[in-house]
Amino acid sequence: MAEARLVNGRAEAAIAPEDRGLAYGDGLFETVAIADGRPRLWDEHMDRLLEGARRLGLPEPPLATLHEEGHALAREASGGVLKVYYTRGVGDGRGYRPPDRPEPTRVVSRHELPAIPRERWEGVDCRLCRIRLSAQPALAGVKHINRLEQVLARSEWQDPAVAEGLMLDPEGAIVEGTATNFLAVRGRALVTPALASAGVAGVMRRWVLAQAEALGLRVERRGIHPEELPEMDEAFLTNSLIGLWPVRSVAGHQIPVGPISRRYLARMAEQRLTPLLGQADGGHGP
Amino acid sequence: MAEARLVNGRAEAAIAPEDRGLAYGDGLFETVAIADGRPRLWDEHMDRLLEGARRLGLPEPPLATLHEEGHALAREASGGVLKVYYTRGVGDGRGYRPPDRPEPTRVVSRHELPAIPRERWEGVDCRLCRIRLSAQPALAGVKHINRLEQVLARSEWQDPAVAEGLMLDPEGAIVEGTATNFLAVRGRALVTPALASAGVAGVMRRWVLAQAEALGLRVERRGIHPEELPEMDEAFLTNSLIGLWPVRSVAGHQIPVGPISRRYLARMAEQRLTPLLGQADGGHGP
Repeated sequence: MAEARLVNGRAEAAIAPEDRGLAYGDGLFETVAIADGRPRLWDEHMDRLLEGARRLGLPEPPLATLHEEGHALAREASGGVLKVYYTRGVGDGRGYRPPDRPEPTRVVSRHELPAIPRERWEGVDCRLCRIRLSAQPALAGVKHINRLEQVLARSEWQDPAVAEGLMLDPEGAIVEGTATNFLAVRGRALVTPALASAGVAGVMRRWVLAQAEALGLRVERRGIHPEELPEMDEAFLTNSLIGLWPVRSVAGHQIPVGPISRRYLARMAEQRLTPLLGQADGGHGP
Repeated sequence: MAEARLVNGRAEAAIAPEDRGLAYGDGLFETVAIADGRPRLWDEHMDRLLEGARRLGLPEPPLATLHEEGHALAREASGGVLKVYYTRGVGDGRGYRPPDRPEPTRVVSRHELPAIPRERWEGVDCRLCRIRLSAQPALAGVKHINRLEQVLARSEWQDPAVAEGLMLDPEGAIVEGTATNFLAVRGRALVTPALASAGVAGVMRRWVLAQAEALGLRVERRGIHPEELPEMDEAFLTNSLIGLWPVRSVAGHQIPVGPISRRYLARMAEQRLTPLLGQADGGHGP
């Protein structure tokens, strides 16, 4: 449960059952890391929310209000997680058709940090999920709240030794993990799926891509088939909360944990991008 | 807004913002017609809910309780609409991973009948939507609450002369309307998409298919490409609320309104399957 929350600016615990967010998943969300009482990469999260609203035809999110609410909730916590939901609001009884003048619902809530074993930042084992991500260019990249594919994928395994499941597109190329983006290093290339027909354009992925040049890497946006993994020098998973986990195996096939992952982890820790990375130890967990 | 509602059996107006129905669209819904104070095709709706819960790995819905709640709300109305939502309930902070012991949320609410021009039951004009339905066999047929594709499709037009938009699969075959199933008649064949990789297995579609033999029709489950439409003798749309609308044109191409549509409409009216069909006039609106 939330430690604190604001629903349309009020400290209440209720969403109308007729909210289109519940009825149709007609909305967006963001998961933001809080470190030292501040939401991290806030502008990047708001950029994505804005772009998602444009893609779904939602009214422009009230960025100044969200900034105020997000920072107010974060201020009360040293470390934690902020969630922001932004839906098309209560429907007007016309079914799927959006209201002419929607009154969006916004929820900003603060949650405890999840307990994650610190070994995860040294390398994780992944599986390949059986369920595939469907191809839908109209929604690709958007962090919307139609997430049943991820729920079903994450239901496929219980083994705590498997940190993440990778999801393939209909052609069998890796798109992302259930809750993370996937990137790989081959020589001087940083390879990551283009997310043109499926997947979420993660904020931490964007940060990693923006740093690539400074690390002497060129970015290649393309799908990676599992059979190509043995050719990769490194692979890693990113999201706003974990920062980065090196991938040390996928479905039993080993991948080295290498210097690029470690350099990114050190930079993330330096910049305090997530409270789950220690400040001084170059990228270890809490 | 709802005229009356029960959230987990209580007459309240609130869903927890942490409900997985809102967070991920992790749930199911049913839209049930009320006629003469009774929910119609209730058992068929509950069969589909049960099957949807099995597909999503949700706990079995409490059918006896839902029956009691649905019938209690319906009893207070001559005609109307019941909505039933059934979600995986409040999450336990583990993200997409379902809780080990989920406590589902159920919402049963009653709404006014929508105002629909009665000419719709004489024949409707349809468009072809630009957005396509993605292929996802794991979710096909299920009436889940990940409905952004339908929301985007229904956002494509405002012209009230266009009653429905037909949605195509990635191969370009018609799957269904945004809120209706699609069926066509060719000779003695009743043709309808198989819904094996996309679409909702509608309760009224199921009723129509079950009556086919009695009307001398054999059922063919296959996709119909728009260019095949001129070969069709009839086509129609179904859902639990409208019953059936004959299709008289798709994207400007005419289709005859014929005897099979009229016979189905007469049967639906006789059996009072929806309050939007008059009892004695063989299938006209209110």
